[in-house]
Amino acid sequence: MVGIFVDLMNSIQRALISVFDKTGIVDFARQLVDDFHIEILSTGGTARTLQSAGIPIIQVSNFTKSPEMFDGRVKTLHPRIHGGLLMRRDNPQDMADAEKYNILPIDMVVCNLYPFKDVIAKADTDLNAALEMIDIGGPTQIRAAAKSFHDVVVVSNPNRYEEIIKLMHENNGKVPLEIRWQLAQEVFATTSLYDATIANYLGKNMQENSNAVIDKDTHDFPELLIKLYRKVQKCRYGENWEQRGYLYEDTEKSLGLSDLKKLHGKAISFNNWLDIDACMQVLLDFQQDHAEHQICAIFKHTTPNGVAIDYNSQLEATKHAFSTDPLSAFGGIWGFNNKLTAEVAHYIIEEKKVFVEVLLAPEFEPEALKILKTKENMRIVAFGDFLTHRNEIYQQPEIRSVLGGVLVQDYDWKPIIKEWSVKTQRPVSEREKEALIFAYRVSKWAKSNSAAFAKEYETGIYTLGIGAGQQSRVHVVRLAADKAREFGHDLQGSVMGTDSFFPFPDGLEEAVKAGAKAILNPGGSIRDDMVIQKADELNVSLVFCGKRVFRH
Amino acid sequence: MVGIFVDLMNSIQRALISVFDKTGIVDFARQLVDDFHIEILSTGGTARTLQSAGIPIIQVSNFTKSPEMFDGRVKTLHPRIHGGLLMRRDNPQDMADAEKYNILPIDMVVCNLYPFKDVIAKADTDLNAALEMIDIGGPTQIRAAAKSFHDVVVVSNPNRYEEIIKLMHENNGKVPLEIRWQLAQEVFATTSLYDATIANYLGKNMQENSNAVIDKDTHDFPELLIKLYRKVQKCRYGENWEQRGYLYEDTEKSLGLSDLKKLHGKAISFNNWLDIDACMQVLLDFQQDHAEHQICAIFKHTTPNGVAIDYNSQLEATKHAFSTDPLSAFGGIWGFNNKLTAEVAHYIIEEKKVFVEVLLAPEFEPEALKILKTKENMRIVAFGDFLTHRNEIYQQPEIRSVLGGVLVQDYDWKPIIKEWSVKTQRPVSEREKEALIFAYRVSKWAKSNSAAFAKEYETGIYTLGIGAGQQSRVHVVRLAADKAREFGHDLQGSVMGTDSFFPFPDGLEEAVKAGAKAILNPGGSIRDDMVIQKADELNVSLVFCGKRVFRH
Repeated sequence: MVGIFVDLMNSIQRALISVFDKTGIVDFARQLVDDFHIEILSTGGTARTLQSAGIPIIQVSNFTKSPEMFDGRVKTLHPRIHGGLLMRRDNPQDMADAEKYNILPIDMVVCNLYPFKDVIAKADTDLNAALEMIDIGGPTQIRAAAKSFHDVVVVSNPNRYEEIIKLMHENNGKVPLEIRWQLAQEVFATTSLYDATIANYLGKNMQENSNAVIDKDTHDFPELLIKLYRKVQKCRYGENWEQRGYLYEDTEKSLGLSDLKKLHGKAISFNNWLDIDACMQVLLDFQQDHAEHQICAIFKHTTPNGVAIDYNSQLEATKHAFSTDPLSAFGGIWGFNNKLTAEVAHYIIEEKKVFVEVLLAPEFEPEALKILKTKENMRIVAFGDFLTHRNEIYQQPEIRSVLGGVLVQDYDWKPIIKEWSVKTQRPVSEREKEALIFAYRVSKWAKSNSAAFAKEYETGIYTLGIGAGQQSRVHVVRLAADKAREFGHDLQGSVMGTDSFFPFPDGLEEAVKAGAKAILNPGGSIRDDMVIQKADELNVSLVFCGKRVFRH
Repeated sequence: MVGIFVDLMNSIQRALISVFDKTGIVDFARQLVDDFHIEILSTGGTARTLQSAGIPIIQVSNFTKSPEMFDGRVKTLHPRIHGGLLMRRDNPQDMADAEKYNILPIDMVVCNLYPFKDVIAKADTDLNAALEMIDIGGPTQIRAAAKSFHDVVVVSNPNRYEEIIKLMHENNGKVPLEIRWQLAQEVFATTSLYDATIANYLGKNMQENSNAVIDKDTHDFPELLIKLYRKVQKCRYGENWEQRGYLYEDTEKSLGLSDLKKLHGKAISFNNWLDIDACMQVLLDFQQDHAEHQICAIFKHTTPNGVAIDYNSQLEATKHAFSTDPLSAFGGIWGFNNKLTAEVAHYIIEEKKVFVEVLLAPEFEPEALKILKTKENMRIVAFGDFLTHRNEIYQQPEIRSVLGGVLVQDYDWKPIIKEWSVKTQRPVSEREKEALIFAYRVSKWAKSNSAAFAKEYETGIYTLGIGAGQQSRVHVVRLAADKAREFGHDLQGSVMGTDSFFPFPDGLEEAVKAGAKAILNPGGSIRDDMVIQKADELNVSLVFCGKRVFRH
């Protein structure tokens, strides 16, 4: 870069203060006046607040010699304000202009914006009220001040007041260049966010208005997609040691992973977050049919390793989920839909002595926490009533980088059964149906192509074998069956779900050979008839649900 | 929503025109004057342009009765301009103010901004020159006009001129409410983008300046991450039928998937894009060691199904990549690093009659295209010199949704071998080394946990069996070996790569039992010694490369 700056800023003599959020403003202004003898320009509500606190101010209308007009819509949009901000103190021509036209320098702007976002969040805000909240003067002031950060300090965030006063005390009434620079950057980030919110709001309301020219898709997936994310956590590294990795929250989200509370253990890693995301989504998914039941889901590498529901007992659900593949459950992420009990904590930690990376539950019995906390590193994460907010959670689209861009889609959160259609002779009992849907749900989360064998037991349903993300359907069915057998599961009388249709009957034959009596998939192959015929020959139930659940 | 609007806007009488990009402005202004008798306010370069074209204008400084100051930094920031834009025509008090202070209404703003982004892209732009390009008056004008879209038309995009004139002719000199609304939304999207660019620029330059208060990580992963994406394609649906899906390009990208050229075939689907992304990344990865060779990579479900390199022959590479798993190659995505030859097209389409979803190559021999185009649906995509731009392509971070936010990380594009360390007695030949790295690369892209067996042949290297994305390492090794055997591959004397360490010797034993003579992984298990000892007992080579390649 050409030209490193020397900081030539003079000490601050005049500040323009105009804030919507008045938190801390009286103290801040008082210190500017008392400690640094700064002249304060102000207007409207801010002026009244400062005056009633006994702080001397000059009204902007006196300073500009121009009256307030249009109910305060035009106050600071005046050459004496913007000249005062934009004049370059090191430019002789600018300074000559200032003298000629009697423009006084303004060295500090303290301003925050009308809370557009909060106002539109209220149910009773109509479009006119929202438009009224679009701040014009505020962004102009802070942008002008930020452009002039060589000469002007701009404070757009009330959390900064204390720090600024401290810096001024340490620097002869000045704020150091690098801080002014930071403050300027903060301004443009703030205005960018502010205007993105307005653009999205106007798009949304065009849709809802009768004169709609923008359809639902264009509203949800606009031509220019503006996303603003706030940093939440620096992870130790990304997916691998050489990659830097961070968790950000979506500034438009209502609820998300950043709202989870870690109660104990090491910092959550990047790969932990990937697994937590998958595990929370599986809990949200199973909760739809099993809110009254006990759910336990164990994850490895963003793939379910074992899932179980029990109609009554959390311990039984845990034992069954663990049994699917106890080898890979080592180092896994374990999720529960109900308060974690002491007996389950005892089972995992003291009886089975499993090393768990992350344990997720809405809350924890005190006795359970006591047992769990004996494991120094294990991350214990509470998610409260997260599972009751499925609708809000899935309002944002799913985004994923591809080279030079992103793929954006609706989350796949619609009902997993579109149309329940038994295609074969053999009848399907209610419990089999429940088990089939259970298996299909597991397959959904095990990445394409996947397959899951499941079985009812006296008080619940659990996975026997899960095959994840293979290139072909027949291999993944075989893999799931092999794994089930390896861990001693009896596949006779089991059910199987798989995330897309069978292109050939071979995948179905593998499942039946292994012991499955009923199979669920979406249907839709050009050879469906051939597959159905084969199922009838083998006397198993084949059900189509009409909804594919690919996931990559 | 409360209050659907009735459009009460009067016909346009006065327009403020101030554009940096003067494309089409003379014609547009002439039509405003000639066809609609509109009074034009203008200033600076725009005023000169219009005047020399013989279009009558009123200078802004005459209109405001306020001189231009500070080298044009303060021109339109005046109550007579902003009052004229912000006065509510249906508000009696506002209209009384207008009369009292003699403020005339301005009904149209035609304005585009200083090209901040283009200026900073130039190598010789220093910070002062960039700051000078931060437009203050322009954004204020268009934001004020957009806020007042009930009464004001704002045109911030030269591509709109023709349409606006047409609409005015059709509507008695007015622009319909829904279009004004759209134009207003466009303004806030534009200013949001503009300020995001400035915020990111200031962050970057803080870093590069000597007074750095922001470190490299904060620069690359700022507190507020602002991403702007432009819509490129609406896909038929997302990953599944019920999901809407779109491809967007990153407005900051230098090169990406949106630069690929489809020469033939059906529209590219959402899942195609996922596979194309994976396939292009594999080509970029293998190109590092094999730029002089012929590469063929076949993908299914974002996972490599078969990969081969040949030192000379594209046909041999293709035959070998296809041979790995000819069953799953059906419906796959096929990628090549060199111009696709007619003989390869003949082999795939006419000899093997494979159904290919997408075929990717830098370019195509005319004879090859002729053969390929006989397949009506097959997507043929040319990527030109894409593979020579690896460094630029990987400048943007990788982003992935988690609930309520995103995980952001560096792409995993560093050299795959950090430290080549042979841990065992059996020596590793140069060709074995090449094959080991080849297998390790394949495993990297086959998702965690994965394993790939590969083998040298006379003029190249190819995969024998690939196991993708399983919960445990031992199972995925077994799976890869089983698949290789199923398709008739001889695993004796093969090599194997796997994306992370062996937690126990069992995975290694599986590989050796299958026939592997050399194995590559990153190392790093607490039981590495046990695994090394087992390898020596079995007389195979075990190599650690020091870099894990997880991918989910």
